[in-house]
Amino acid sequence: MKSIEWIGGKVRFIDQTTLPTDEVFVETDDLVVFADAIRTLKIRGAPALGIAAAYGVVLGTQHFQPATSQEFYKTLQQAVSVIAQTRPTAKNLFWALERMDSVCRLNIHESVDHIKKALLDEALRIHAEDAQMCSDIGRYGAELVPNPAGILTHCNTGALATGGEGTAQSIITTAFEQGKSISVYADETRPLLQGSRLTAWELQKRGIQVTVIADNAAAVVMTMKKIDLVLVGADRIAANGDTANKVGTYNVAIIAKEHGIPFYVAAPTTTLDRSITEGSQIPIEKRDPKEISEGFGKRTVPEGVTVYCPAFDVTPHSYITAIVTERGILRPPYVESIRLVVQKTSGRT
Amino acid sequence: MKSIEWIGGKVRFIDQTTLPTDEVFVETDDLVVFADAIRTLKIRGAPALGIAAAYGVVLGTQHFQPATSQEFYKTLQQAVSVIAQTRPTAKNLFWALERMDSVCRLNIHESVDHIKKALLDEALRIHAEDAQMCSDIGRYGAELVPNPAGILTHCNTGALATGGEGTAQSIITTAFEQGKSISVYADETRPLLQGSRLTAWELQKRGIQVTVIADNAAAVVMTMKKIDLVLVGADRIAANGDTANKVGTYNVAIIAKEHGIPFYVAAPTTTLDRSITEGSQIPIEKRDPKEISEGFGKRTVPEGVTVYCPAFDVTPHSYITAIVTERGILRPPYVESIRLVVQKTSGRT
Repeated sequence: MKSIEWIGGKVRFIDQTTLPTDEVFVETDDLVVFADAIRTLKIRGAPALGIAAAYGVVLGTQHFQPATSQEFYKTLQQAVSVIAQTRPTAKNLFWALERMDSVCRLNIHESVDHIKKALLDEALRIHAEDAQMCSDIGRYGAELVPNPAGILTHCNTGALATGGEGTAQSIITTAFEQGKSISVYADETRPLLQGSRLTAWELQKRGIQVTVIADNAAAVVMTMKKIDLVLVGADRIAANGDTANKVGTYNVAIIAKEHGIPFYVAAPTTTLDRSITEGSQIPIEKRDPKEISEGFGKRTVPEGVTVYCPAFDVTPHSYITAIVTERGILRPPYVESIRLVVQKTSGRT
Repeated sequence: MKSIEWIGGKVRFIDQTTLPTDEVFVETDDLVVFADAIRTLKIRGAPALGIAAAYGVVLGTQHFQPATSQEFYKTLQQAVSVIAQTRPTAKNLFWALERMDSVCRLNIHESVDHIKKALLDEALRIHAEDAQMCSDIGRYGAELVPNPAGILTHCNTGALATGGEGTAQSIITTAFEQGKSISVYADETRPLLQGSRLTAWELQKRGIQVTVIADNAAAVVMTMKKIDLVLVGADRIAANGDTANKVGTYNVAIIAKEHGIPFYVAAPTTTLDRSITEGSQIPIEKRDPKEISEGFGKRTVPEGVTVYCPAFDVTPHSYITAIVTERGILRPPYVESIRLVVQKTSGRT
């Protein structure tokens, strides 16, 4: 299943808000519709947001036929600005926008048609690189998975969240394909239930044993010795390894540490943000309180009561056993290992 | 507001499953209806379950007019059995059933009418004692609350859960009435959302500042220095202080310890079970997986995926800073402090 793809001038994506009951695919060439889909989490997952951002730039510029490339660049900047306002935390989204902006600037002395082609090529390249990244993360990470293995995961890090097989979930899939006996416990992941709605749906499709639990039962299943390792994704990783990911990740990290269970983060190197020294500097998106108070069309908080709804939290690096990237497994001290991998990677793009 | 009361041959209670949107009161003299209300959590909360159990015995026997007291006792045992099968974890329920059974046995040589009156008196006494217990717990516990105080709580421990002002929540209310500046963070408490539906509703009615958060945000609000102490209730406490309470309590306890925040359990001495040496022996109720998979009236887990839904978890005593009872504040080592308070208390009843 492709969660997002480019089809002749349009983006086609699966609406992640109607899963697991309805599999609805949306096709659009309208940037406003597309940006709204990003904002409302119809498309979500850090790596997928990078791909979506790149396609969004193409959507927002492809039908514009100005006299000069300079004028075209202004329109591109407007498209970039629209997309940049959808989700503030995911590093990949801004990274992809920067790549698209660079391609335009590099080709600014070429024709508008030439620039358009270069932009579409770049977006398709970002998508293809992401698929390769997933498979590389899966291969490196699978080395960390014993046989048999009980794995706890939080939120969704699968094909839905990426352009390929996922990040943390690619590790699960790869280990499973290597013949390991895998049992996954998926936190349902309040408020938006990406674990129960999306992760369980993806793993079931692949024939991998999955049990959904309330986030509150994570510690219980650890005391029952059901969990050998925790695997999560990341939305942004600071220079020292502090990791922003779906709210509740930090809870799981603390609980895992208390039970002596290794806690692994899986993310592409594009998630590493050396411009941010430590986690406290990562901007954390606040979501609409209605995601909690009216989660599924029924009011569950009294009218007038305050609701605090952060989308992410930051897990300090000291809780993270290792970070699995497409370039290999990073170990503490992360200031060093992240610096090295970023230096190597920046030579590539 | 009285969450449960005896009114001329019937029990009147508020249906806790329709809160916070609808305040529905139910009156019944039918034990089958009443036992079903306990099973389906229309009535819930460990101390309230003790009161409900006692009233249930009266409901199940009051219209039975046998020739002998022995025959009456058999009917009483049937009623006890019906109620005992509703909820397996709450100590108070069994404790109240035992008290009702004793009253019947003590009066077995009296007339059936005499026994009936003694049973109703005992049920009303259990209710009145519970209200007094709440107020005593509030008074003792308020000493632990600084001014100002940010308090994290999990599940519901208020008037809805008891025959009085609550257990942990009575501490909050008492501290507030003493003029302390109180800000409560209420975990929404998946799967059944007792925190967002019930605790927030009760605190709002009392004019106490309350913010609802997803259970996943508990660690975030601690890192924001919003929390000075955690207050929770208990369903059963073993001889060594290990405490069974709503699933997710153990998660909160671990997270609180990691942030150096005191973690207090508030419970009447009837919750102490010295027949159980340690937490691993406490029977843990499994609830219907639909509480997770169809919690909001809408399917959120794919068909065919396993769901694990324990109602409770056990917090090891080492995470508990103190246990507040109606007889005073118990401190570690709990084997000693629990033994002492139980010995004193058993002299009383």
